[in-house]
Amino acid sequence: MNEAAKTLDGWYVLHDFRKIDWSSWKAVPQSERDGMIEEFTSLLNQWSDTEANGKGSHALYSIVGQKADLMIMLLRPTMEELNHIELAFDKSGLADYTLPTYSYVSVVELSNYLAKESDEDPYENPYVRSRLYPELPKWKHVCFYPMDKRREGNDNWYMLPMDERKDLMRSHGMIGRSYAGKVKQIISGSVGFDDWEWGVTLFSDDVLQFKKLVYEMRFDEVSARYGEFGSFYVGNLLETDALSKYFHL
Amino acid sequence: MNEAAKTLDGWYVLHDFRKIDWSSWKAVPQSERDGMIEEFTSLLNQWSDTEANGKGSHALYSIVGQKADLMIMLLRPTMEELNHIELAFDKSGLADYTLPTYSYVSVVELSNYLAKESDEDPYENPYVRSRLYPELPKWKHVCFYPMDKRREGNDNWYMLPMDERKDLMRSHGMIGRSYAGKVKQIISGSVGFDDWEWGVTLFSDDVLQFKKLVYEMRFDEVSARYGEFGSFYVGNLLETDALSKYFHL
Amino acid sequence: MNEAAKTLDGWYVLHDFRKIDWSSWKAVPQSERDGMIEEFTSLLNQWSDTEANGKGSHALYSIVGQKADLMIMLLRPTMEELNHIELAFDKSGLADYTLPTYSYVSVVELSNYLAKESDEDPYENPYVRSRLYPELPKWKHVCFYPMDKRREGNDNWYMLPMDERKDLMRSHGMIGRSYAGKVKQIISGSVGFDDWEWGVTLFSDDVLQFKKLVYEMRFDEVSARYGEFGSFYVGNLLETDALSKYFHL
Amino acid sequence: MNEAAKTLDGWYVLHDFRKIDWSSWKAVPQSERDGMIEEFTSLLNQWSDTEANGKGSHALYSIVGQKADLMIMLLRPTMEELNHIELAFDKSGLADYTLPTYSYVSVVELSNYLAKESDEDPYENPYVRSRLYPELPKWKHVCFYPMDKRREGNDNWYMLPMDERKDLMRSHGMIGRSYAGKVKQIISGSVGFDDWEWGVTLFSDDVLQFKKLVYEMRFDEVSARYGEFGSFYVGNLLETDALSKYFHL
Amino acid sequence: MNEAAKTLDGWYVLHDFRKIDWSSWKAVPQSERDGMIEEFTSLLNQWSDTEANGKGSHALYSIVGQKADLMIMLLRPTMEELNHIELAFDKSGLADYTLPTYSYVSVVELSNYLAKESDEDPYENPYVRSRLYPELPKWKHVCFYPMDKRREGNDNWYMLPMDERKDLMRSHGMIGRSYAGKVKQIISGSVGFDDWEWGVTLFSDDVLQFKKLVYEMRFDEVSARYGEFGSFYVGNLLETDALSKYFHL
Repeated sequence: MNEAAKTLDGWYVLHDFRKIDWSSWKAVPQSERDGMIEEFTSLLNQWSDTEANGKGSHALYSIVGQKADLMIMLLRPTMEELNHIELAFDKSGLADYTLPTYSYVSVVELSNYLAKESDEDPYENPYVRSRLYPELPKWKHVCFYPMDKRREGNDNWYMLPMDERKDLMRSHGMIGRSYAGKVKQIISGSVGFDDWEWGVTLFSDDVLQFKKLVYEMRFDEVSARYGEFGSFYVGNLLETDALSKYFHL
Repeated sequence: MNEAAKTLDGWYVLHDFRKIDWSSWKAVPQSERDGMIEEFTSLLNQWSDTEANGKGSHALYSIVGQKADLMIMLLRPTMEELNHIELAFDKSGLADYTLPTYSYVSVVELSNYLAKESDEDPYENPYVRSRLYPELPKWKHVCFYPMDKRREGNDNWYMLPMDERKDLMRSHGMIGRSYAGKVKQIISGSVGFDDWEWGVTLFSDDVLQFKKLVYEMRFDEVSARYGEFGSFYVGNLLETDALSKYFHL
Repeated sequence: MNEAAKTLDGWYVLHDFRKIDWSSWKAVPQSERDGMIEEFTSLLNQWSDTEANGKGSHALYSIVGQKADLMIMLLRPTMEELNHIELAFDKSGLADYTLPTYSYVSVVELSNYLAKESDEDPYENPYVRSRLYPELPKWKHVCFYPMDKRREGNDNWYMLPMDERKDLMRSHGMIGRSYAGKVKQIISGSVGFDDWEWGVTLFSDDVLQFKKLVYEMRFDEVSARYGEFGSFYVGNLLETDALSKYFHL
Repeated sequence: MNEAAKTLDGWYVLHDFRKIDWSSWKAVPQSERDGMIEEFTSLLNQWSDTEANGKGSHALYSIVGQKADLMIMLLRPTMEELNHIELAFDKSGLADYTLPTYSYVSVVELSNYLAKESDEDPYENPYVRSRLYPELPKWKHVCFYPMDKRREGNDNWYMLPMDERKDLMRSHGMIGRSYAGKVKQIISGSVGFDDWEWGVTLFSDDVLQFKKLVYEMRFDEVSARYGEFGSFYVGNLLETDALSKYFHL
Repeated sequence: MNEAAKTLDGWYVLHDFRKIDWSSWKAVPQSERDGMIEEFTSLLNQWSDTEANGKGSHALYSIVGQKADLMIMLLRPTMEELNHIELAFDKSGLADYTLPTYSYVSVVELSNYLAKESDEDPYENPYVRSRLYPELPKWKHVCFYPMDKRREGNDNWYMLPMDERKDLMRSHGMIGRSYAGKVKQIISGSVGFDDWEWGVTLFSDDVLQFKKLVYEMRFDEVSARYGEFGSFYVGNLLETDALSKYFHL
């Protein structure tokens, strides 16, 4: 197997973006609206209960701009669990007042480029495990975008020798590391699962750090020559106890 | 005729992706909903009866993410039969609560690249027949994506000499074979039938094998230089007897 | 004038693709549905009457997959007649239960590449006339796709000298001719009329011949280097007397 | 200022394409429908009154195919007037039975490439004025398409020296002039106003001349190497006194 | 950090484009419509009150053509405030009669290319502050478009050395400066926030200046070789006290 293709894979991930159909929502009597918020809150609590046993994690953000109102990010040990949760949400009352605008299916991934040679089973390494099975931070802002490595003419990532890719990724990774503490980054692989090759989810308490990080990386050869980017979503943390206010008319 | 253009062709294939209109579904009284599930189940049973006579195969999967909820994959000896089944489904009650999101029309294909010289009529060869007229496995996960061979500047597959294409396809095929037992792969040709040149349908009991296989292939020159890929769909097996639960509110 | 730009042009062509809104159709009482089928049948008969006087031709096919349910292909001596027919259909009852999904406006065209030098007025030549003003065959299958000649970097068809284009088209045409009797091909030009440069409509009693023909041509330099293709539609003949059954619930 | 960037600019132009929602239209009682046609006719007459004072021009065409049913083309001295007319139409009854499908915002433009050196103020030249402030002809057919000059690799129009662009445009213009009397052409610039750089509107009494002109130009280097084209719309003149018949059920 | 990546960042910006659903609006009794205009006016006044304390700015324009009817442009010190305002608008009555058509999320940005070496903290410089925290002018016209710097083959902005980018940007900036007094330009960065890298918002009392400026820049190497442009929106100032008339039927 091509050495680079040997990734470490953790929890499966669903990013689910929804718009709220405010016109229809306004037509609902308040008591019914309250009931739907309660039902949704109790779904979120069920998720948290499962996650308390180390079986996944989730996050809820309010997206800025018209692309979406809400982003639900879900991590679970199996693809079936993501599907069950999706289905449970679709069957809930609140879902009828949301419109799906985008979703992304992937699996948390650590690439082989930065791996050290070792006899150890990486899946037993606590640091590796904390990255493959991460608890999502409750940081104030989120940024999500999908991306590909380019395969165009002379800029074909997949035709580069492993050593060259390794060198490029190392300098690329150093930019990321310089944001440690300011930006938490989760890379999830989606080859075979969704339309782009990776999803990048960034968390920060300072939304400007997303711009600084992504813009600085753009001058790095890995992005400059080989990066193709999809849509960018940016949002603000939406805590469960702020839901009533968020949906209140 | 260009030697590569001599393919072996088996059953015609329709991939039919649908979203469920849950809001409308919820407005239907349970007895009517039950009636529609029964009607759909009986359609599926009719398909199975036809297939028991070796006249095709079908599969039903629940897709993860917003691209679709259901994927129906149908194989039949003629294009007319696919059309009739499509029409019968559209006329059924459940169809009114589904929204078409994507479909793909193709025919199961074995390429000429890996063919051995032989005097035998390949259509009489039992192994070839089992691949042209396959019974779809009831494996837990499915992955579907359409693809093209690139025709861009120096990366023009169709301008390569047959020998070079043959060599490239051989090494490409070896990756596929290394997943034997873990991933079952059905290639269907759609030149002249749909917008991409091939559809690839993968089945596995371990959803991660899709990612491993597709990612490993991406470093192979056939994909790296010459592959163009459409949308990827991934899903979980939906057995007929799980339908009631799936649609239950 | 650039010699290649001298085409022979025949009847104007409208390809009109529609989906059926089955949910709404089901809500209509049967007697009303019957009335609409009758009205549509009588429209089709009016078209046939006009065509019996050598004033055009039409075909009706059932498309496989979600891109469309019906394809109406109309040939008429003037653009105004196409417009009138379109309008008459839109005003008919059945149209309310259809959704437009794609259309194509063009004119039957014979290119100058294969023309022989002659003093004769080609528009008086019976063979040429039969191709410019064709009666559409009632063959079992149809395939439609629009296409462009590429203008990209070194692969720029319109910058090639006439002689080179002529040579390329000759070998390209030979592939087409090898399918004589099996596939009937109508090329219609749409430069200035629609988004692609040509529409290709193929008829055959064996649907697999579409795939064989288009795939074989793809290895020919004209397609391999210079062809850009739009969406492909494939369908089965829908005879007027099968309409009742087609629409029956 | 780059010499080529010095254009002469005339009236502002709005191309407004609409589909008719025939299903809803059919549900309206005839007397109301008649009222809406009258209201629309009176809007058209108001426009004509303004135009009789040399303050603009308009045209109404019936588009062939599904892209649109109607094209309203409006020329006015200011952008505000276009906006007011658009708003007045949107507030009219008929507008509720139309669906916007495309629009284009531009300003009539004469390029600097073909200008002669002169001390005269070109805006005082009667010939120039007749082209910057044109009365749209009542010719039987219209063709509209937007276009860009390409900026790709070696085919970058905007990196060519002025002299080379001038030479190329001169030979390009000669093709256009050879259609004088048969095709009337209005070029409008949309840099900074809409998504393409120019809109091209052609009028002719013979619809085939659009195809001949655009196809012949495609072999000219300006189009072959440097032209990028958007959607093409083709239509038939719809006279005000034919409106009742057009909308009659 | 790559020197060019060091930008100065000011207020966060939301461009929010909406169409008006005139059909539904017409069905509302006038007193209710008046109430909704009052509510919207009071929202606008709240925004102005906040802004009077130097905490942002906003603008309202009427867009020409079908892409949108209204553009609301909002500047605020934090991303959360943009989100709150968006939410408040969505909950207002008028919002139910608007359809979102496009939005853009960014932050006012001054690039490092034109910066002078200095020991001063630029965020304390009054001129810099006036550009990072601008009061939007009440000029008659607006033009908005998003853009990228190209990364294609030999035209890869992000692979150029800093010095070369600096030189290119200097000559590019000189074109902009030659329009001083005629066009006011606000550049906002959206890397990590939205799908393009920058949003450009131009204000002028003479709409033709947008075309002149953007067209002249297109011949400059920065745009000619390295600029990729999204959709262009052009509009006319819509003053708060003109709202009643705008929405009046």
